[in-house]
Amino acid sequence: MHREKSSSRKKAAISPVFRGRVWIDGKDGTFLGHGRIVLLERIREHGSITKAARSMEMSYRHAWELVDSMNSQAEEPFVSAATGGKGGGGAQLTDAGENAIRLFWKFSEDFQVFLKQEQKKLSFQRKMPKKASKK
Amino acid sequence: MHREKSSSRKKAAISPVFRGRVWIDGKDGTFLGHGRIVLLERIREHGSITKAARSMEMSYRHAWELVDSMNSQAEEPFVSAATGGKGGGGAQLTDAGENAIRLFWKFSEDFQVFLKQEQKKLSFQRKMPKKASKK
Repeated sequence: MHREKSSSRKKAAISPVFRGRVWIDGKDGTFLGHGRIVLLERIREHGSITKAARSMEMSYRHAWELVDSMNSQAEEPFVSAATGGKGGGGAQLTDAGENAIRLFWKFSEDFQVFLKQEQKKLSFQRKMPKKASKK
Repeated sequence: MHREKSSSRKKAAISPVFRGRVWIDGKDGTFLGHGRIVLLERIREHGSITKAARSMEMSYRHAWELVDSMNSQAEEPFVSAATGGKGGGGAQLTDAGENAIRLFWKFSEDFQVFLKQEQKKLSFQRKMPKKASKK
């Protein structure tokens, strides 16, 4: 059972996993990424940037900066904040914000499919020329 | 010329760019990534881990650790070092190392194509439901 002819340990048993990360840049650098999208979803859930930030253990200041960065780079704002002073008015996701969430998750989903396809395709190719030394 | 009807600044002019990063994990975490592949190419070029490291302003120790990590996770080693003591024997890329380089650049290339396709596809979708408020 344990007799392998030419390998001391069966390394080939665990095949490499293709991984990655995607995001979308705008005119000022990062525009949409995983964390920003989760923040938008939390704002939708909580109706408030303060509460959304708290739910992610993120400072209000940082959350506000991320929202501001998205709003200023988008064609239409993603989050509309009702005026009402500090922690006052609450915040709502706009239709553009909803679209951004959908778009980003679609991008992520397609990316996962791409990674699986590449893993299948390239792992196969990798094994082909193993014995055929062209030199 | 400067009269735009409904936007104070023409934000739409700069469209978002889809970006990302890919790598390959093995049994101990990262197995192949951009930096590791460049290191392999430099080893091929210089015939020495020391010189390859120096050309990348990387410490010998770090370069050696990266090579060791790749060699121990690969089915067959990517770099073979001739024995010869400190800085002695030189190092050579194996066929498996050459294959790894080819595989990774192919993966990167496919990924760039994927990003462009997604950008085209999803940017188009993004604009479709802009005016149609479903709520």
